[in-house]
Amino acid sequence: MTKITSLDVVDWRYPTSLNSDGSDAVHKDPDYSCVYVVLRTDAADGLEGYGLTFTLGRGNEVVARCCHSLADLVIGKDLEKDILSDMMRFSRTLTQDGQLRWIGPEKGVLSMACGAVLNAVWDLWTRQAGKPLWEFVAEMEPETLIELIDFKHLSDAITKEQGLALLKERRPGWQARVAEMKRDGYPAYTTSAGWLGYPEDKIRSLCRSLLAQGHRYFKMKVGSVDPEEDVMRARAIREEIGEQSCLMMDANQKWDVPEAIANMRQLATFRPLWIEEPTNCDDIVGHREIARALRPLGVGVATGEVAQNKVMFKQLLQEDAIEFCQIDSCRIAGPSEIFSVLLMAAQRNIKVCPHAGGVGLCEYVRHLAMIDYVCFSTSLEGRVCESTTHLHEFFHDPVEFRSMSDSTLRYIAPKLPGFAQFLPSALDDWAFPHGKSWSDEAACGAVLHAKARAAIVKEGEQAAAVTESTLAALDPSLVEALQAKCAAVLRRGKRKLSE
Amino acid sequence: MTKITSLDVVDWRYPTSLNSDGSDAVHKDPDYSCVYVVLRTDAADGLEGYGLTFTLGRGNEVVARCCHSLADLVIGKDLEKDILSDMMRFSRTLTQDGQLRWIGPEKGVLSMACGAVLNAVWDLWTRQAGKPLWEFVAEMEPETLIELIDFKHLSDAITKEQGLALLKERRPGWQARVAEMKRDGYPAYTTSAGWLGYPEDKIRSLCRSLLAQGHRYFKMKVGSVDPEEDVMRARAIREEIGEQSCLMMDANQKWDVPEAIANMRQLATFRPLWIEEPTNCDDIVGHREIARALRPLGVGVATGEVAQNKVMFKQLLQEDAIEFCQIDSCRIAGPSEIFSVLLMAAQRNIKVCPHAGGVGLCEYVRHLAMIDYVCFSTSLEGRVCESTTHLHEFFHDPVEFRSMSDSTLRYIAPKLPGFAQFLPSALDDWAFPHGKSWSDEAACGAVLHAKARAAIVKEGEQAAAVTESTLAALDPSLVEALQAKCAAVLRRGKRKLSE
Repeated sequence: MTKITSLDVVDWRYPTSLNSDGSDAVHKDPDYSCVYVVLRTDAADGLEGYGLTFTLGRGNEVVARCCHSLADLVIGKDLEKDILSDMMRFSRTLTQDGQLRWIGPEKGVLSMACGAVLNAVWDLWTRQAGKPLWEFVAEMEPETLIELIDFKHLSDAITKEQGLALLKERRPGWQARVAEMKRDGYPAYTTSAGWLGYPEDKIRSLCRSLLAQGHRYFKMKVGSVDPEEDVMRARAIREEIGEQSCLMMDANQKWDVPEAIANMRQLATFRPLWIEEPTNCDDIVGHREIARALRPLGVGVATGEVAQNKVMFKQLLQEDAIEFCQIDSCRIAGPSEIFSVLLMAAQRNIKVCPHAGGVGLCEYVRHLAMIDYVCFSTSLEGRVCESTTHLHEFFHDPVEFRSMSDSTLRYIAPKLPGFAQFLPSALDDWAFPHGKSWSDEAACGAVLHAKARAAIVKEGEQAAAVTESTLAALDPSLVEALQAKCAAVLRRGKRKLSE
Repeated sequence: MTKITSLDVVDWRYPTSLNSDGSDAVHKDPDYSCVYVVLRTDAADGLEGYGLTFTLGRGNEVVARCCHSLADLVIGKDLEKDILSDMMRFSRTLTQDGQLRWIGPEKGVLSMACGAVLNAVWDLWTRQAGKPLWEFVAEMEPETLIELIDFKHLSDAITKEQGLALLKERRPGWQARVAEMKRDGYPAYTTSAGWLGYPEDKIRSLCRSLLAQGHRYFKMKVGSVDPEEDVMRARAIREEIGEQSCLMMDANQKWDVPEAIANMRQLATFRPLWIEEPTNCDDIVGHREIARALRPLGVGVATGEVAQNKVMFKQLLQEDAIEFCQIDSCRIAGPSEIFSVLLMAAQRNIKVCPHAGGVGLCEYVRHLAMIDYVCFSTSLEGRVCESTTHLHEFFHDPVEFRSMSDSTLRYIAPKLPGFAQFLPSALDDWAFPHGKSWSDEAACGAVLHAKARAAIVKEGEQAAAVTESTLAALDPSLVEALQAKCAAVLRRGKRKLSE
């Protein structure tokens, strides 16, 4: 018997806004951040589990608060009996809590917090099993895998029986596919060249250097205030990468539906493989209409990085609104919900090309892409998984790439047990606002340094505002310790003053 | 010049779970709660604004945290220049913040928090103008009203020009409609009879007493584990209310799409006007298919209480997926976004029948229903606005009803300036966890009393965990005051011990 004894939450942030990394038409100054959940157990070997969900900086504190609110549903649970024996039922206790679900339901902050917690549970599970998550799932028989998937609200698209039949039909050859992933890896593309904040000469030189590194897929951001600028940038990139390479475009929801169709009719000249997030992420009908208009031009519609749950993906698939399914690894409620999307995409032969970038997303998606290949799609044709070069230095077993003889780039299969884990130094340096680097203005820039300082002051003021009646509810030893901390700080202050 | 000087946030909760009030197929034990935002200004007359968003209890703290995160975007703003001169632009600074929007976008916790803050801004605005919100908006000329509405991502359904033309066409007679609302009020229906947790005899006697009070619209919850139970309860209610009264059904998203169709084919015998939330709230395609199947049976589909934003409503309308639009007053980002939904519904002649109940929702929706009548729909035909009898005692200018000679019940028009405001006693008693009634076990029940106590202890522990380096960042006078509080508590503790 192993019990979950604690759920700790870290607000982790990194000042990417200093270099315009990650800038696009809608998100002009992201600071790549995540809420990092640590589950501790009473296991003799000190077993722990780690999970994260990605954000752009401000708002990370809200998701962190939500993870704290989920803690009561996790702490004290028996790992085997209450959780692993029926992961689907356990997931529902988080996503379907009769009161909490009102602040979702199954979307936004609540789903992201469930994602962080469930990623940590899956990390714990596969760490205990001594396998990288992707391999652990790849080895599951269809009868086991199907039990993880919640078919609630999906049965008009696929039933459990149909799902099981599909998994069984796709099972043969799984060992060869696992061996292939270990040997060759999974096809990758890069988004590092085309950020909207980059000037043309930077884009051209980045294209050349990425080409030289073996890249053949290039994604650019579109949605400039002046559509002519998108045309000029597309022309520059197409000139650099030539006719053999693949160009993708990403509008980050900038356009209205008629605007998306009009602008992409212009940009179709440069033969993009897909237009990603052409309009509002919730607009299934809009995506369907854009897909209809662009199909004759050979341009596919792609979306999914902020699709909130399996029901949104179900509809995108039912309405033929997407040709590429860009599942994110931590916006929806954990690997099980992601598997339900992989299953529906496999049923309709829609290509899964996961969203990555940010912090931790590349570390996660390589697992998911390989699971998709081994268990669901069984094909690599037209599949390509996003990648970026940033922030991998903070992880155990970080992403690595291999150049293949056919000039494609591949994600190497993860080797360590679990899902993903920060190095201790990453937490020491960048936990917000107390991490070492947040008090180092040279590391984080003046603006964010001041914000970190302000966050510390606010935290102190909040502590200082505690009422006597609240303190009276505490164990007196805690109050004594607090009194001693106050005394020490005041003593030091006076000493400094007298020096 | 008036400046916003502070944004305070109250976590307000009420123990409705003690009596199964509000119980349904999905929410078995709600504790009606809200996050209450208070905006203060530097105006000489002490002008303040009040706004709320409703939740079911747990999770209220997450929405509260998000309201705190929005405070920086509001505090210090000049009321006229930065906010009221262009409310649409101001709303966008909250909903489209380049970092915060990632934890939405435009949905869930983030939208609810924006709703609370924007409701407070509107309250402030109309309070300053000395008018109840509904009357303030009713008096707006179409050219003014249209500027409040953000047509971003709506233009495939309706453009600003089309919207203005519609408002102008509907303008004639507005003064007579305002006078009618003041004289007669807006048609109401009650949900107080059919909660899923109530036994049959309680339902029957409630029906009889509500009939005697003048009610003619009765809503029942469906979605029992055994569908036969729904049939039995529907039969009982139809027997009590007779053929003249109207019966509505509400499944609270319990069913899958094929299940909803099959169950409603059974329940159609009892001639429900509508089936509300027959399946997952995000399933536009599912609602469309259910609507198609039930249209020949004379049963309409209704939804909207948890529809996350205007883009979801746009699609529900585009796909003919609903016949009744049940907009909520505080789940989406404030009155302006609600007006965009009222406009789209008016364009398609879809009846708006707002969602209410909870706490504060009835106080809000009467404004919105009257605005819909005066400015958008200009018709009461088939319109009926939800109401419940709970928790009105906590408000200034609480909802009141009038029985008309035609035996229908009407919401009386709000009379005081603003949108809605708690009485001071409501905050003293039920602010969580420090309100007086939360320390009174007889008032809140043993379970919730213990939870309130635990929340206070956690708050104290968090304060006591403050580090010396955080305290060192504070003004020393704050640290001295904290030290004094600790000393006082310890002194009292020792005195008690020695007695």
